[in-house]
Amino acid sequence: MSTTINNGDYVLLYLDRRRTYLVKAEKEKSFHTHKGFIPLGELIGKEYGTRFKSSMNVEFVALKPILRDHIFKGLRKTQIMYPKDIALLVMFSAIGPGSSVVEAGTGTGALTTALAFYVKPNGRVYTYEVRQEFMKTASKNLERAGVLDFVELKNKNILDGIDERDVDAVILDLATPWLVVPYANSALRGSGILVSFSPTIDQVVKTVEAMKENMFTAIETIECLMRRMQAIRGKTRPETLMTGHTGYITFARKTLEEIKDWSDKLQDAEQSSSS
Amino acid sequence: MSTTINNGDYVLLYLDRRRTYLVKAEKEKSFHTHKGFIPLGELIGKEYGTRFKSSMNVEFVALKPILRDHIFKGLRKTQIMYPKDIALLVMFSAIGPGSSVVEAGTGTGALTTALAFYVKPNGRVYTYEVRQEFMKTASKNLERAGVLDFVELKNKNILDGIDERDVDAVILDLATPWLVVPYANSALRGSGILVSFSPTIDQVVKTVEAMKENMFTAIETIECLMRRMQAIRGKTRPETLMTGHTGYITFARKTLEEIKDWSDKLQDAEQSSSS
Amino acid sequence: MSTTINNGDYVLLYLDRRRTYLVKAEKEKSFHTHKGFIPLGELIGKEYGTRFKSSMNVEFVALKPILRDHIFKGLRKTQIMYPKDIALLVMFSAIGPGSSVVEAGTGTGALTTALAFYVKPNGRVYTYEVRQEFMKTASKNLERAGVLDFVELKNKNILDGIDERDVDAVILDLATPWLVVPYANSALRGSGILVSFSPTIDQVVKTVEAMKENMFTAIETIECLMRRMQAIRGKTRPETLMTGHTGYITFARKTLEEIKDWSDKLQDAEQSSSS
Amino acid sequence: MSTTINNGDYVLLYLDRRRTYLVKAEKEKSFHTHKGFIPLGELIGKEYGTRFKSSMNVEFVALKPILRDHIFKGLRKTQIMYPKDIALLVMFSAIGPGSSVVEAGTGTGALTTALAFYVKPNGRVYTYEVRQEFMKTASKNLERAGVLDFVELKNKNILDGIDERDVDAVILDLATPWLVVPYANSALRGSGILVSFSPTIDQVVKTVEAMKENMFTAIETIECLMRRMQAIRGKTRPETLMTGHTGYITFARKTLEEIKDWSDKLQDAEQSSSS
Repeated sequence: MSTTINNGDYVLLYLDRRRTYLVKAEKEKSFHTHKGFIPLGELIGKEYGTRFKSSMNVEFVALKPILRDHIFKGLRKTQIMYPKDIALLVMFSAIGPGSSVVEAGTGTGALTTALAFYVKPNGRVYTYEVRQEFMKTASKNLERAGVLDFVELKNKNILDGIDERDVDAVILDLATPWLVVPYANSALRGSGILVSFSPTIDQVVKTVEAMKENMFTAIETIECLMRRMQAIRGKTRPETLMTGHTGYITFARKTLEEIKDWSDKLQDAEQSSSS
Repeated sequence: MSTTINNGDYVLLYLDRRRTYLVKAEKEKSFHTHKGFIPLGELIGKEYGTRFKSSMNVEFVALKPILRDHIFKGLRKTQIMYPKDIALLVMFSAIGPGSSVVEAGTGTGALTTALAFYVKPNGRVYTYEVRQEFMKTASKNLERAGVLDFVELKNKNILDGIDERDVDAVILDLATPWLVVPYANSALRGSGILVSFSPTIDQVVKTVEAMKENMFTAIETIECLMRRMQAIRGKTRPETLMTGHTGYITFARKTLEEIKDWSDKLQDAEQSSSS
Repeated sequence: MSTTINNGDYVLLYLDRRRTYLVKAEKEKSFHTHKGFIPLGELIGKEYGTRFKSSMNVEFVALKPILRDHIFKGLRKTQIMYPKDIALLVMFSAIGPGSSVVEAGTGTGALTTALAFYVKPNGRVYTYEVRQEFMKTASKNLERAGVLDFVELKNKNILDGIDERDVDAVILDLATPWLVVPYANSALRGSGILVSFSPTIDQVVKTVEAMKENMFTAIETIECLMRRMQAIRGKTRPETLMTGHTGYITFARKTLEEIKDWSDKLQDAEQSSSS
Repeated sequence: MSTTINNGDYVLLYLDRRRTYLVKAEKEKSFHTHKGFIPLGELIGKEYGTRFKSSMNVEFVALKPILRDHIFKGLRKTQIMYPKDIALLVMFSAIGPGSSVVEAGTGTGALTTALAFYVKPNGRVYTYEVRQEFMKTASKNLERAGVLDFVELKNKNILDGIDERDVDAVILDLATPWLVVPYANSALRGSGILVSFSPTIDQVVKTVEAMKENMFTAIETIECLMRRMQAIRGKTRPETLMTGHTGYITFARKTLEEIKDWSDKLQDAEQSSSS
């Protein structure tokens, strides 16, 4: 994998954990921080990971931006989902290379970016968003993260239904997820996964009820508390500040019609086993 | 994506959250649970997600096993990493389709399975394990999960060094990760990611010190507490039992030699900016 | 404070954190553990804190039992409240020496023991319990803990009303706390504290609604997660097992009728301040 | 218990959870908030808990300040211990009416206030503080909370030793608690409790080692995470903000010299038991 910074590539200028800047390395351009000027054009041709000093003699590192940086540094107009929640949502949903995923709402594309990253190169994300201005921002964010090609942005209200069929997963991050559960049921393949992210427990309870009515199974709701540690000899401790709550994630799997009239097969199974 | 159960396919028989069985759908075979017999052969040709009754008239669902099931249902001889930790480790490491990853130790392949799943189809996992019997079990688990092709199992001690160069990530889950940090530094490309998972805070402190000595940057240590919710109207509450601690995950990024003698460029940047 | 063990005193035989035994030091008596015999009578006249060996040469310590030991070692027929929750409940309720407190239900007296301990020597706990067999057990537990004198055990259903008036606090640990809120309002003095402990969030929501209807103020709901640490150099880490949830504690304070017709006083206040 | 507001009494003016004001009800005085004027003198003779409107027609409640208010509203020059930690510290230390307790350092008296409140009316707190200006502030805070009579403020460095003997508990909240462990051992009665509060895990490890060297037993370290819930129908969720870490609390109990030469008693115990 090439790690040289090319003209037009994104670079994450790293000063410390709280001060990082996502910039484009372009000829003749320079970047001004309160810690001095940085000649961005001069980073072209260098390797990602290179350390350098600003005009105020402060050390920065030119890191290659990763998924998490694109999520955090994207243009925002809405509250975005936290990487910790995206991580559990993706992993527990079995979303991976090749998956076809329906998502709503897009917002400014934080979760969409992650979904698109993981379904690469042959999967696809269909994402629903009613508000046009959010779609435009999401589109820009997806392009910056290099994953726009794997996403179909749909200016539609998912409360009116889902167009796709036989998808692997439906991911809901909206105010009334329970209203979408029947559509998700139609859109999913058998054994496919429905996921809902909600800040309140009331939303979770209603959604779980809708899932049960629609014959979903393996329903589970989790919450992730992430703690940061300061790991310095003599000063080791969890950090003082912590996000207390972001939301609950609920997972469920679609079931299909029950097999009928196989009582003879069951008898056979019992006999073959005992023979 | 085909969702029909074929002869020889794995099926996750789902009774409830704590009682699931990973079996192979094979002709003439049947499976015996304490809730009755199940004619596995009869599931062939059905869709994943199909519901059915056992010979004791108890409902099961024939789910398609997903990554998490393969991790939990794999043959084990060691303590395996929890899916919650694997999720954060993978997401925060930017491991995805196409990544090249070095891992140690393999153990019985729980984390390896996840890494291989995410680097598909064109990435690669190089995993180090000293103990031959673990390698064999890991190999079986990887094969069952369908990801063996993306993994190179190496019967080597990573404390003797890492053979690979320019990899995207090095993932350590072993007793003395700090001893491997210099090798990881040589193996990684610039800006590449080193991750270490350790149960004790003493291991974390030593590893962070080794990372700093080796000029790694963006070092951070996190811990994930996952809580399950019982979401039933009138009975909604977090579950009583909870895993209190599994381990800490530390991330760091490789830096390269500093750019020297660019004071004239810095001056140019300052001037062009103020002009 | 005398710390000599007298005939008939309770002693906590301490082997390790999970193996402690609450016994009575009585002449001629001995105690049998799987780690050997202990001549209890011989402890009489010794100081609390004394170390000794059992007949199998295993070291024990003769500790003085404290409140927490009495709570944990009491006879039980019900789920008892955890010391962590009792601690926050007592502290945030301002219950202390001299307080008058109404409690329901008594159960086997775990919380009652703590309340009585803190209202000593001139306060009083009025505790309601419908089930006679629980009252008897509670009575025994309170006597063992030496706090029975500060408690009035009432074989009554608090859902039928509260007899006491002008009490400092009402503490509810029962299935339908919201039904008791109006009675608590009548029983409390102005600014007095109502506390409710409930495992489910549904109970909390209903109780908070009843508190608001009854003009309570300063309503807050908390939850306490307690983590144990293994603090051994080289092996330091949170313990693996953790209680994920016990219950929510809700606090509220009683308000009295609003002051009417003091508009002239308000004007005076404004004028005197600006003069 | 009288609940009438008298001239000179403290009143907690409650607007909402984040806006409360600890004031003195004095004749002719008024209090100015950004929500209007309040004629404090007019509250004299009213009951605690009374609701009233400010000159801007905003409702306040005149609550009786409780221990927690005094801790939070005290004059501060240092970081104070949180009520959640004070609650667990007091409860797990068996500190209650009549206890004699040594504390260091006093700081501005937050923990001292709580200790004094619980040892009332016949116990005593001996608190050590080197810095004179802190002692003065602590003295004022203790007086305001009405517990100064139960405290002996000592302008001494506890690292030079503890004067008291046979105390029930020694509570340490200072940078190097391990250095005080031998003195605590001398000061405590047999079976007495030593408690240490420390923000870092390094301090805990050193202190636990010192406790073991000094033959303390029943050593345990805990940490309390407190979560607030927003309990409103349709909007129920944990609050977004949460304090991630305050400190670890370590408890240990003093042991005395081992009983020697009682092998004949052990034999007797075994025989009497088997007879």
